[in-house]
Amino acid sequence: MEKTILVTNDDGINAGGIRALVEAVKDLGRVVVVAPAQPQSAKGWGITITEPLYMRKVNTFGDDIEAYEGTGTPADCVKLAKAILFKGEKPDICVSGINHGSNAAINIVYSGTVSGAKEASLEGIQSIAFSLLDWSEDANFEPCKPFVKSITSSVLAKNLPSNSLINVNIPLLKPEDIKGIKVCRQAHSKWVEEFEVRKDHHGNECYWLHGEFVNQDEGKDTDIQYLEEGYITIVPVHVDHTAHAIIDEIKTRFEDE
Amino acid sequence: MEKTILVTNDDGINAGGIRALVEAVKDLGRVVVVAPAQPQSAKGWGITITEPLYMRKVNTFGDDIEAYEGTGTPADCVKLAKAILFKGEKPDICVSGINHGSNAAINIVYSGTVSGAKEASLEGIQSIAFSLLDWSEDANFEPCKPFVKSITSSVLAKNLPSNSLINVNIPLLKPEDIKGIKVCRQAHSKWVEEFEVRKDHHGNECYWLHGEFVNQDEGKDTDIQYLEEGYITIVPVHVDHTAHAIIDEIKTRFEDE
Repeated sequence: MEKTILVTNDDGINAGGIRALVEAVKDLGRVVVVAPAQPQSAKGWGITITEPLYMRKVNTFGDDIEAYEGTGTPADCVKLAKAILFKGEKPDICVSGINHGSNAAINIVYSGTVSGAKEASLEGIQSIAFSLLDWSEDANFEPCKPFVKSITSSVLAKNLPSNSLINVNIPLLKPEDIKGIKVCRQAHSKWVEEFEVRKDHHGNECYWLHGEFVNQDEGKDTDIQYLEEGYITIVPVHVDHTAHAIIDEIKTRFEDE
Repeated sequence: MEKTILVTNDDGINAGGIRALVEAVKDLGRVVVVAPAQPQSAKGWGITITEPLYMRKVNTFGDDIEAYEGTGTPADCVKLAKAILFKGEKPDICVSGINHGSNAAINIVYSGTVSGAKEASLEGIQSIAFSLLDWSEDANFEPCKPFVKSITSSVLAKNLPSNSLINVNIPLLKPEDIKGIKVCRQAHSKWVEEFEVRKDHHGNECYWLHGEFVNQDEGKDTDIQYLEEGYITIVPVHVDHTAHAIIDEIKTRFEDE
């Protein structure tokens, strides 16, 4: 039976990355795109609860691809797709991206692209977030496409365990220089931030966020390490945020018994 | 030496919950409030990268409490506090809330309140997210205050391991009916969503998100279970989203060796 593939992203429906993603997967099944009308980078796993959402059919990918732009976040788009378009039925997979820029390491927590995939996995839809390590608006996604197609095809052929999701990052290399795929963990890392203080056109002080990424992880088995070595990285992701390792220690401090 | 306590939330600086939080902790040290000017519920761990932020000194809590309202999300407010107000120095703790409504179980991923605390913990500031199981705008936070003060005081007296964060939920009970504190894990759960389809005033179709919370977890050691039994719950939280348990299985599928 033909597979159904839900496509979303956070850079917005007009971004080059989602166009490349649609092209990469369109031969694998019936593609339905529901993506934000406007860029939603760094919106995290936000959802919209205080205003209504709108969804509009568009022709962005030509007559052959069913596509909708939604107001709101990537997670909103996935919810709309599931409830309104699929009417509670599930697509066979959700693919999100291809993000313009890395979603490795700590970027995973801020990323709208990964959050769209997380929302799908909560809904029991296996999902993949794809990102290319190139932040530029006119990034060249051509060399990614065979890798994206191959990974998606593999997941469609044999489902991920328990409808989980994988976070895929692709280094900015020529295809022949990519060493292979590494399945690994998220690097322990942070952004060191500074704000640029400026005056706006009314003379009011305002703050522009600037950050520098810092890898705090010396392990050899992290996404950052393998990306630097020239591998595509796959990090399996879950939505249990419990720090199980310190439950017992915290117990001794707060429980009465 | 006097402790410094950074206070934020996601319901906005004028919410009853943050007023109660300030009152609960103000005798424990020097309080600095930096909270969103507007409600930011369900904004997840969003940050603002495409527009400037503004921060304005306000008198919301009287002359004795230094307070600022910021544009943007709770995570933005924590970043502004650290970079602009503390100039890179660290407060001794960040407390976020008291949220109007539960942040137990899967709510943790959408919550701006918890995300503010997560952002602080990334910055190496131990933090606590507090929530009361009452969504109403005029929720009564009075009975929470002794618990909030006691937990915060305990963490200030002996730091959490590795500047981690704890997610505290308080059941809607009379203080004498609260059975104690349980340190536990996040329940496996989801929101089952439907959209209400309406016409806006232009006659355009729009979608309002409605959801019903479903606990999918039969474990006895979860936050949902203990809240139902009448306990305050503490879930230690970390920001590693790697699904370590399935790395090996995914490895066999995607790595070449």
